[in-house]
Amino acid sequence: MTEGESKLIETAREALGPHGVITDAADIEPWVSDWRGRVHGASPAILAPSSTDEVAAIVKLAGKHRVPLVPQGGNTGMAAGATPSADGSQLLLSMRRMNRIRSINAEGRLAVAEAGVVLETLHEAAHEVGLRFPLTLGSRGSCTIGGLTSTNAGGTQVLKFGTMRSLVAGVEAVLPDGSVHSGLTSLKKDNRGYSLDQLLIGAEGTLGVITAVALKLVPAVAARAVAWAGVETPARALELLRFLEARTSSIEGFELVPEDSLQLVLKHVPGTRAPLNDQHNWQVLIEATTADANTDVGAELEQLLGTALQQGIIGNAVLAANEAQADAFWKIRDTISEAERAEGQTLAHDISVPVGDMPDFIIEAAKKVEQAFPGVIASGFGHLGDGNIHFHVRAAGHSNPNWYEDEGAKITRFVDNLVTQAGGSISAEHGIGQLKLEEFGRLAPPGRVNALRAIKHALDPLGIMNPGKLVP
Amino acid sequence: MTEGESKLIETAREALGPHGVITDAADIEPWVSDWRGRVHGASPAILAPSSTDEVAAIVKLAGKHRVPLVPQGGNTGMAAGATPSADGSQLLLSMRRMNRIRSINAEGRLAVAEAGVVLETLHEAAHEVGLRFPLTLGSRGSCTIGGLTSTNAGGTQVLKFGTMRSLVAGVEAVLPDGSVHSGLTSLKKDNRGYSLDQLLIGAEGTLGVITAVALKLVPAVAARAVAWAGVETPARALELLRFLEARTSSIEGFELVPEDSLQLVLKHVPGTRAPLNDQHNWQVLIEATTADANTDVGAELEQLLGTALQQGIIGNAVLAANEAQADAFWKIRDTISEAERAEGQTLAHDISVPVGDMPDFIIEAAKKVEQAFPGVIASGFGHLGDGNIHFHVRAAGHSNPNWYEDEGAKITRFVDNLVTQAGGSISAEHGIGQLKLEEFGRLAPPGRVNALRAIKHALDPLGIMNPGKLVP
Repeated sequence: MTEGESKLIETAREALGPHGVITDAADIEPWVSDWRGRVHGASPAILAPSSTDEVAAIVKLAGKHRVPLVPQGGNTGMAAGATPSADGSQLLLSMRRMNRIRSINAEGRLAVAEAGVVLETLHEAAHEVGLRFPLTLGSRGSCTIGGLTSTNAGGTQVLKFGTMRSLVAGVEAVLPDGSVHSGLTSLKKDNRGYSLDQLLIGAEGTLGVITAVALKLVPAVAARAVAWAGVETPARALELLRFLEARTSSIEGFELVPEDSLQLVLKHVPGTRAPLNDQHNWQVLIEATTADANTDVGAELEQLLGTALQQGIIGNAVLAANEAQADAFWKIRDTISEAERAEGQTLAHDISVPVGDMPDFIIEAAKKVEQAFPGVIASGFGHLGDGNIHFHVRAAGHSNPNWYEDEGAKITRFVDNLVTQAGGSISAEHGIGQLKLEEFGRLAPPGRVNALRAIKHALDPLGIMNPGKLVP
Repeated sequence: MTEGESKLIETAREALGPHGVITDAADIEPWVSDWRGRVHGASPAILAPSSTDEVAAIVKLAGKHRVPLVPQGGNTGMAAGATPSADGSQLLLSMRRMNRIRSINAEGRLAVAEAGVVLETLHEAAHEVGLRFPLTLGSRGSCTIGGLTSTNAGGTQVLKFGTMRSLVAGVEAVLPDGSVHSGLTSLKKDNRGYSLDQLLIGAEGTLGVITAVALKLVPAVAARAVAWAGVETPARALELLRFLEARTSSIEGFELVPEDSLQLVLKHVPGTRAPLNDQHNWQVLIEATTADANTDVGAELEQLLGTALQQGIIGNAVLAANEAQADAFWKIRDTISEAERAEGQTLAHDISVPVGDMPDFIIEAAKKVEQAFPGVIASGFGHLGDGNIHFHVRAAGHSNPNWYEDEGAKITRFVDNLVTQAGGSISAEHGIGQLKLEEFGRLAPPGRVNALRAIKHALDPLGIMNPGKLVP
C-alpha cells in the first residue's frame, strides 16, 4: 500500500462510512482481475460510494493524495478497462452501491439511472411502464449503466437503435478536479460549448467518473419474429439486409453465422439443432420487431423472405414457429464463442469496417490469415449490418497447447494491420482498456494520439482517473 | 496588418495559388461582419483553400506565424461565430471553395460533402438518388455543411431526425497542429478512444477546421401533410404532440405559434391569411411525412386531429388542401421574426428547457418578464417538441428608439437567469460565438468553464483557431 493510499483509505472511511470502504482481501479478490481472467491486478481496498457527493469527495481526496482510481461497474468488460494495475498502487472505485433508478418518465420516454444500476434491472423498470430500453447484450444480468456508457457498449440491437451513444440523453459525472458535471436535464437541444457528455461516453473512466445517466426509452415490443436464412456468400447476406431494410423498418437484429461456426455449435452445445434442413456456406439470423400490436411482423417477414428466395438472394429460410424456437435460433448465435473454445484455442478480434466493405473483407481477410499462418482457421461472425464482426482465428491444425500465448500477438498484429488498411477499427465495440492499448498506439495516426493525450492531460493533469487505459 | 499576417499571406500565396488569397478590400468587406450586422470585424485577407491539404498547410503556417484563423462558411450564423475581431489581427479562412460532394452512396445512405457545400446543393444531390438529407433551415441557400456541423445546427425537422450531431456519420478536420483527423470512413461502431468527431461537432471552429463531413441520408419523402390547429394553452399543444406521437411515427414538424405572433404576421406580411376561421390563444403547425407511397399521411393526420378534437385536446384544426396551402401555413411560421421586426424593436432568445417543462415555462417566463419590464410583450414560439423556443421580447409600449441598446442586455440577463434556473440552455441551437460568450461565462458552472478552457488549450495551445469564440 502506498502512503497516499493509506491516507486516502483513512479519510475515505470518514467520508463514506463503514460500508463504503472494503479492505478484506477476500472481498476484494473477485474484482481485481477481469472476468475472463486475462489480466490480474491488485488493490488494497475498494471504495464504494453511495452518492454523487461521495464520489466527488473521493475524487478530491484522490487528487490530494495522488492516488489513481479505477472505476468499476459489473466488471464484465472485454478489454480489462476496469482492472487495476498489478502493483497495488491504484484503488478500485466500485459504483455498484449507486444502484437507484432515480426516475422514469413514461411520457417523456426517459429514465435516469445511477451508474451501478444493472442493465437487466433497467430493462425490467422500463417494461413496467410499458416501455423498453433497447440495448442488450450477454452480460445484461451483471453489467451496469455506468460501464455501458463509459465503454459506449453495442450489443445485438445496434442496427436499429445504435450504441449507447445514441441512447444516452445526458450524463452526470464527477470530473477529475472533483467538480460535478450535471448533464441530466436531457435538453434535446443545447449548444453551449463542447459536449462533455459525448466526451465522457466511451472514455472508459479516464476523464471522470460517470455517476448517473439519462437514457432514452422506446415503445415496448408488441411482437417479434425470428428467422434463419441460408445464403451463398456474405455479400448475399448484406444484399438480403438491404432488401429487407428497403421494405420494412422492423428489422432489428441481423447476425451473420458461417457454416463452420454452426457446425461447431451443433457439435459442442447440447440440445442445438440446425434450423434448416439443407446446408449453406453462410447463415443469417434475422429478428424483426414491432411496437404496433396490429402489425403481423411474422407474416411480413415470411413474405419478404419468400420474395428474396424467388429473387435468388437467399437459398432457403425458415421462420421460428414460436418463442421457444426463436430462442433456439438465438442460442446458436450466442454460443458460437463457447463452442469454439470447446473445440480448441481461439483468438478473438472485435473489428469493424465500413458496412458495404464487410462482405469482401470477411472473405479476403480469412484467406490472408490462413495463408500467413498455415493450419489456422479464420472466420467472421456477428453484426454484419453494423459493419462489425467478431473475427476469430482458431488453432485448428496446431497441437501446441501454448499456441495462444506463442502465436496470438503475431496473428493479432496481422489482423489489425488488415483492418487498418481497410479503414476499419481494431475495436468496434469492446473498447481499448488495457488489452488493446499497445495495438491502438501502434496503429493510430500520431495526430490522433497527440490529441487524445492532450485531452487526457488537460482534464486529468494529476493522472488519477484510470491511468494506463485507453490513451496510448 | 500584423507582421505575422503579412508573412502568412505571403507564404499562403505560394501554398494556395492566386485564387486562394483575397486581399482586395471590396471582396473582403461582405464577409467581415455577421449577416445580421450586429458585429463588425476586419481582416486584411481571406484565405480560401481548395483542398484539405491546403487547409493543413495554412494551419501549419498560422501556427508558425502565430496568426489566428477564423473559419467561415456561408456566414449565416446567429452568434457571430465566424466574424473576425475588429482589430484586424485575425485572418478569415473561407471554406467556400471546398464545395465538392465527394461521394453519394445510395445503398449505404451516406454522402460525403466538403465543408463549403451549400445545404441546398446537398438536398438536391440526395434527391437525385432518391434520398433526402432531412435537416433544413431558413438559410439553406447559403449556409454550408462545415458551418452546420461546427454549430451543431438544428432547424425545423429536429423532432424526427435530430440536430446535425445525429446526422453526422464522420468528420474530416485539420487539427490546430496541422494534422488531419480522418473520420470519414463512417464506421458504425468504433470504440478507439475519445470521439474527436463528437468534440468537433458544435465546436465552432475553435478546435480545428472541419474540411469534410460524412452525412446520413434518409428515404425521400413520398408524401406530406400539413395541418394547423388551435389550442387553449402550450400544455394542450404538448398534449397534442404526445397524442400524435403515440399513434404515428410520421410527425416531423411541430411548431408552436402564439396568437399575437399570428396577428403580427397577418398585419405585416402581405398575402397571409389566418388558417382557421376562429380565434385561439395558441396555434400549432403540424407537418407529417411518409417515405412510403402507400401511406395516406393526410388521411391519417386528419383522422387523428378529429379524435383530438373530440377529446378536447384541440379547439379546431384544418388540413392544408394542397401544397400551396401547406406552403402558406409554413410561411406564417417562417415570417414571425420578420413581422415582429416590422412592428418594432425585438429582442430574441434561442432557449431550451426539458420538453415537459416548456409549456409552463413559456407562460411563466413571459409573465415574469412583463412584470419586471413594464411595457414589453414577451412570447415564445417554435420547436415545442424539442423543448426549444425562440423567446422574444418586444419593445411594444416603449417609444425609445434605442430601447434595444439601452434595455436589451438587462432583459437578456433576466431571461437567461430564468432559463438557467429551469435547468435549460441559453443557446439551444444558435451556439455561443461572440454574442453569447459573456452570458455563457456568467452562468456556466465553474467546473464546466474550466473543462472547456482546458480542452481548448490542450488542442490549440497557440490559440490560432477562432479565438474569442465559444470558450468563456
